[in-house]
Amino acid sequence: MTLKLFIGPIRSCSLASHLALEEAGARYETVRVDFSKNEQRSSEYSKVNPKGRVPALATDHGVITENPAILFFIAQTHPQANLAPLNNPFALAKMQDFNSYLCSTVHPHHAHGFRGARWSDDPKVIEALKIKVPQNMADCFRLIENDYFVGPWLIGNQFTVSDCYLYTIATWLKDDGVDINSFPKVKDHFNRMAARPAVQRVIRSY
Amino acid sequence: MTLKLFIGPIRSCSLASHLALEEAGARYETVRVDFSKNEQRSSEYSKVNPKGRVPALATDHGVITENPAILFFIAQTHPQANLAPLNNPFALAKMQDFNSYLCSTVHPHHAHGFRGARWSDDPKVIEALKIKVPQNMADCFRLIENDYFVGPWLIGNQFTVSDCYLYTIATWLKDDGVDINSFPKVKDHFNRMAARPAVQRVIRSY
Repeated sequence: MTLKLFIGPIRSCSLASHLALEEAGARYETVRVDFSKNEQRSSEYSKVNPKGRVPALATDHGVITENPAILFFIAQTHPQANLAPLNNPFALAKMQDFNSYLCSTVHPHHAHGFRGARWSDDPKVIEALKIKVPQNMADCFRLIENDYFVGPWLIGNQFTVSDCYLYTIATWLKDDGVDINSFPKVKDHFNRMAARPAVQRVIRSY
Repeated sequence: MTLKLFIGPIRSCSLASHLALEEAGARYETVRVDFSKNEQRSSEYSKVNPKGRVPALATDHGVITENPAILFFIAQTHPQANLAPLNNPFALAKMQDFNSYLCSTVHPHHAHGFRGARWSDDPKVIEALKIKVPQNMADCFRLIENDYFVGPWLIGNQFTVSDCYLYTIATWLKDDGVDINSFPKVKDHFNRMAARPAVQRVIRSY
């Protein structure tokens, strides 16, 4: 199977799917979508993903978008890498619960800091939407620290695609005005992720 | 297995998981969380779901939150109902792609119409966030109509949990100032969903 992942800059959420491909030992290539040239809105990229977002994973069967879907697909098609508890419905649901929370709540909170134009055309409103970002992101990470995080990995003993996703979003905290030191489990997880050879290979590639 | 689904009013997104349980022929009970009494923020409900949101599905192993996770869990634990292409990774990814899109993009757009306080404490900003809701929801449903919808069901010939989720979100369109008649496939899907015995049983239960 040929896998082609369309990615943004290193700080975009496509890093999560990129890390998962590398952790899976997948054969894949990446295509960089240049946000500075607005390539995500080009007619060429619209054929890949009409939403104009990353990540998008082109497969032999067609394109998959949205991190939770791509992450699960990578885990299911690379079972030897054991990146999801595929045959344990409750554990798998907890993994998907977390991935859904990141995409439905944490990522939108972050986006209000610099993509406010999605929700208003008024420059004053767009500016005002930045104010609550640190508080909302801190609230989310408090919940992750206290309720979602089992340890040593997100869902427990098994390293999963959720760890790639958590690490990716945690790289945003500083820009969002949140001190990762307030969340010791998340911080320790962040450091252990950064030390993984697959993560280092991916980061060096940007 | 004992399944207890915590739901809000009929117009809340927990309807999607409720419909899926009924379509699955699952044995379950529902617990109504009374939003008018702010029960979602009660200390009792915080033990179920510290996020103070619905849906939450209590199982023998623990609680699952977030619609995409609950929907997948229902499909995986009731395979006889055939509510997801569990063994076809690409088709499954397309189902999850759609569910993720609803929770990451469509639901947050809708929420700006009446839950703006999530993103600002300024009453003027909260009011201003209502303005773009009809446009954003219409843009999302145009994408669903033109790109996601395969037919006769969302992902093609197989009825899946995504159909329960699409129907649920489509019930919001009128309140969001969007005319469903602009989207003939979505409208036809909505009418076929409303005619299903399982859907009618669930709706009568509210």
